[in-house]
Amino acid sequence: MIILGIDPGIAIMGYGVINYTGNRFQVMDYGAITTSSKISTAERLKKIYEELNIIIIKYHPEAVVIEELFFNTNAKTVLLVGQARGVAVLAAANNNKPVYEYTPLQVKQGVVGYGRAEKHQVQQMIKTILNLEKVPKPDDVADALAVAVCHAHSGNFKDLFKLK
Amino acid sequence: MIILGIDPGIAIMGYGVINYTGNRFQVMDYGAITTSSKISTAERLKKIYEELNIIIIKYHPEAVVIEELFFNTNAKTVLLVGQARGVAVLAAANNNKPVYEYTPLQVKQGVVGYGRAEKHQVQQMIKTILNLEKVPKPDDVADALAVAVCHAHSGNFKDLFKLK
Repeated sequence: MIILGIDPGIAIMGYGVINYTGNRFQVMDYGAITTSSKISTAERLKKIYEELNIIIIKYHPEAVVIEELFFNTNAKTVLLVGQARGVAVLAAANNNKPVYEYTPLQVKQGVVGYGRAEKHQVQQMIKTILNLEKVPKPDDVADALAVAVCHAHSGNFKDLFKLK
Repeated sequence: MIILGIDPGIAIMGYGVINYTGNRFQVMDYGAITTSSKISTAERLKKIYEELNIIIIKYHPEAVVIEELFFNTNAKTVLLVGQARGVAVLAAANNNKPVYEYTPLQVKQGVVGYGRAEKHQVQQMIKTILNLEKVPKPDDVADALAVAVCHAHSGNFKDLFKLK
């Protein structure tokens, strides 16, 4: 099962593509789509949409998985991230890919097996599970891989996390 | 000049298309794109994008104008509206249409000439300026027409309101 994990943002959108087959993980691709604040929001959203579209067409993920937004930031940030997230969800929908979402707590639970795990513990676990030489940077990329691994681990409970 | 005004929302996205030429207004189209909460967010965003795309291709607006989000709602609402807004901005960008935005205060100022105007005053002014038989319903439609009229009235100052 090929899974595309996304950590949405307007300046940096982390993504990670993994293949999970027979309890084995294989990393196919990961990285960050970055946009400059020097271009307009419209151009930034367009770039994010286009690059995600290319990734989805290239890897044909069976699922697109997004971390649910953290709400303790200010409304302006939520709006900016929300716009980027909307474009990411649209890219999945326009390619007929189902979208799943997990809260940060569920990601920790799903990756480390412990909902109160620290960020660095999640990152180390990602490095180990995916057999990477080091923790991918920036954090957005590691987070995108983490949400993808979390989805792989959700087993028969996947439907619980389908985006409503 | 053909202007498409949008009042973004996930359940109801109001739109209004006006033609402003030689100080005269003509309404070309208005209405609401509605989506049911019974379908997934992904399907809702897809529907909004597709319908806006059809409207943009049909009328070829010179400008797409969006009212800036009101921030005194809760973060969940901001996220939902933000996602819908992102998809609307993307529809404009993918059709190479510039996007402008005005705050609610600027819309009142631009339509009524008075930033503290009441909602019903703005609506009556829209009805009069656009020569409509009655105020369009729901409010989202009247709001979309209002932001389009506001843009028409912004004259030489349009660039100030271009989405950054």
